[in-house]
Amino acid sequence: MIPIDRTRFLGWMNDLASIGALAGGGVQRLAFTAEDRAGRDWTVARMRELGLEVHIDPLGNVLGVRAGTDPAAPLVLMGSHTDTVGRAGRFDGSLGVVAGLEAVAAMNDAGVATRAPVGVVSFMNEEGVRFMPDMMGSLYVTGQWTLDVLRAVADADGATIGAAIDAGGFAGDADWRALPIAAFVELHIEQGPVLEEVGAAIGVVEGVQGLSWTEIAFSGASNHAGTTPMTARRDAGRAAAALMAAVHAMAGEPLRATVGTVRFAPNLINVIPREAVVTVDLRHPDEAALAEAEALLEASCHAVALKQRVNVATRRLARTTPAAFDARLVDAVAASAAARGYTHRRMISGAGHDAQIMASRYPSAMIFVPSRDGISHDPAEYTAPDHLVAGAEVLLDTVRRAAG
Amino acid sequence: MIPIDRTRFLGWMNDLASIGALAGGGVQRLAFTAEDRAGRDWTVARMRELGLEVHIDPLGNVLGVRAGTDPAAPLVLMGSHTDTVGRAGRFDGSLGVVAGLEAVAAMNDAGVATRAPVGVVSFMNEEGVRFMPDMMGSLYVTGQWTLDVLRAVADADGATIGAAIDAGGFAGDADWRALPIAAFVELHIEQGPVLEEVGAAIGVVEGVQGLSWTEIAFSGASNHAGTTPMTARRDAGRAAAALMAAVHAMAGEPLRATVGTVRFAPNLINVIPREAVVTVDLRHPDEAALAEAEALLEASCHAVALKQRVNVATRRLARTTPAAFDARLVDAVAASAAARGYTHRRMISGAGHDAQIMASRYPSAMIFVPSRDGISHDPAEYTAPDHLVAGAEVLLDTVRRAAG
Repeated sequence: MIPIDRTRFLGWMNDLASIGALAGGGVQRLAFTAEDRAGRDWTVARMRELGLEVHIDPLGNVLGVRAGTDPAAPLVLMGSHTDTVGRAGRFDGSLGVVAGLEAVAAMNDAGVATRAPVGVVSFMNEEGVRFMPDMMGSLYVTGQWTLDVLRAVADADGATIGAAIDAGGFAGDADWRALPIAAFVELHIEQGPVLEEVGAAIGVVEGVQGLSWTEIAFSGASNHAGTTPMTARRDAGRAAAALMAAVHAMAGEPLRATVGTVRFAPNLINVIPREAVVTVDLRHPDEAALAEAEALLEASCHAVALKQRVNVATRRLARTTPAAFDARLVDAVAASAAARGYTHRRMISGAGHDAQIMASRYPSAMIFVPSRDGISHDPAEYTAPDHLVAGAEVLLDTVRRAAG
Repeated sequence: MIPIDRTRFLGWMNDLASIGALAGGGVQRLAFTAEDRAGRDWTVARMRELGLEVHIDPLGNVLGVRAGTDPAAPLVLMGSHTDTVGRAGRFDGSLGVVAGLEAVAAMNDAGVATRAPVGVVSFMNEEGVRFMPDMMGSLYVTGQWTLDVLRAVADADGATIGAAIDAGGFAGDADWRALPIAAFVELHIEQGPVLEEVGAAIGVVEGVQGLSWTEIAFSGASNHAGTTPMTARRDAGRAAAALMAAVHAMAGEPLRATVGTVRFAPNLINVIPREAVVTVDLRHPDEAALAEAEALLEASCHAVALKQRVNVATRRLARTTPAAFDARLVDAVAASAAARGYTHRRMISGAGHDAQIMASRYPSAMIFVPSRDGISHDPAEYTAPDHLVAGAEVLLDTVRRAAG
């Protein structure tokens, strides 16, 4: 095992966090903005210093390649993204890219060669804040979205990604989708409380749970709260409350269910709601179980609508299939953590990541490190330096196992 | 029994509805505006034509008195209000004033004298839209609010009632609160669906249910909907949903319970709500039962907060005690309806009215006529002409019974 340079690595984390730094703490580098561009330029500059061959594709995805001893061997990639949400923390995404740079630097320092070439990746627009969908860079690399379609994607004001790419100079001319890829490994903060709770330093991620978002709109009749007998009501809010209760009753690990948004109309104290709209976020690591939860949700919507004599319309807003990571790569992560003496735990990712998109085409895996209090997408996001270093070490060792 | 003049009465209803008429139907005469003033001027002009002695008090409350044969007998009053909510119908309030004018006109036509003097009243600012509280005119007349305090009441922009009174020339110098008052009878549309549903022409109103408004704020912790296990959550939205379900489960005639407003924060699909605020509107005709419902609500708030590990704060936004009308006056309404051959039903008012305020000091009663589909506070508000006439006839007869 070769060492990583703790001072250099944590210094680089600080350097990247200074780009788009917010006055009250935290950072903001929304995809396709000048701050995002500055973060990517910083990454490319480090790649060139480390002697990597840089490939930038027409969407702006960045790949830096360290040659292997076998020029025909397919690439072993590591990385994540450097774009952020609004008022973000400094670890989400950045950690995976900076740790990849550090893994290369450590191998350079130690004079270690690998059989397969090793690459560091920074994907475009993982967060999908201004332009949807999220995980856009990996969706492009895996061929699920084409460049023409992505360039035409518009934000709420009608501005397109194509215009933002051209204005910011994000595009390169390398089509690194054509390169042979053997593996993708992403180090990321957990963004949840599990590792902290069980006291493990490393999460060995076996897959990513599937996600199902549904919008449910009940419509009844507005009437006076004082004069309308309970039996004469068509209360859309009452239907929504019953549905929320049904959703919460369905929930139970590993099925996660959240009602994150609600809206009543006319939303007046003494008027029975005419309309009530809620969204339901369901997650499950098993596709059949997720589909079953969706069916139960749909049935509950119709049952409460019937009981409250209101109409209901449901709309699927988003859906991802649970992803399973490559068993050999996952085992390599676990073996790397064990060899370094880190407590580790096998787990499922609750959040979506580029690795789950890459997994649809290439053997992939993820490494998690603890998030204090499970907080993420907030300036309060924090992972202890020892955990950052542990994550970088396990990433380095896993990639070396994969690259031979 | 003397007849009322259907053509004149319905013509007056049309005339008043033309003041502040809206392009798409309905009317708008918000209290203390020029439209309100025009409606009051129209009323005063009719009073003078009918030979009534007009008394306008410093708040703008209008009283027109028709002399009785016994100058010492206390007044028998009828009336309601001519101010409206925004985008109102043409019956709420107006009916009670116009029917009072018509009752006087009918007695004049028939050459009928009463022992006690009879008065027609139009109260200021019953709706309380711009300036709160509602039922302001009757609260002033019954001595529950003083002129100084009311003149200092400000709207959302800081403008005071005093300034609006002075600018609009609403004030008179008569203090008709000093006059002896034997009774107050208010004819009003039901604003609910009961009379229509049971097929009755006249509602014999025995009282007004009490009202209790509570705001309930739950605060928990925002976390990622995907990465936070169900057991680690402090979901304020889940607490609110459980509370809503508990409120709806409490409801059952005559206890009416409505959750009219809800707000989640941050209100994002994939974020567990940190904060959830709901309002609860409770109504019951019995004070002890209303207080019991409030206690159960409070207990439910704390129970769901404890279960979901969130904090809760409750705040009482409004409270009125149930009002019971005068038994002899109520019987006079029922007898009047029966004598005219109208189907009638004893009932409790679901909405608040000046009569409930007047009942705190003077024997009072109300007469309801049907509202189509229970709709009110909307241009679609409608009561059939036959029901308007029936209401005016029962009002006339009830007042004659009371005035001797």
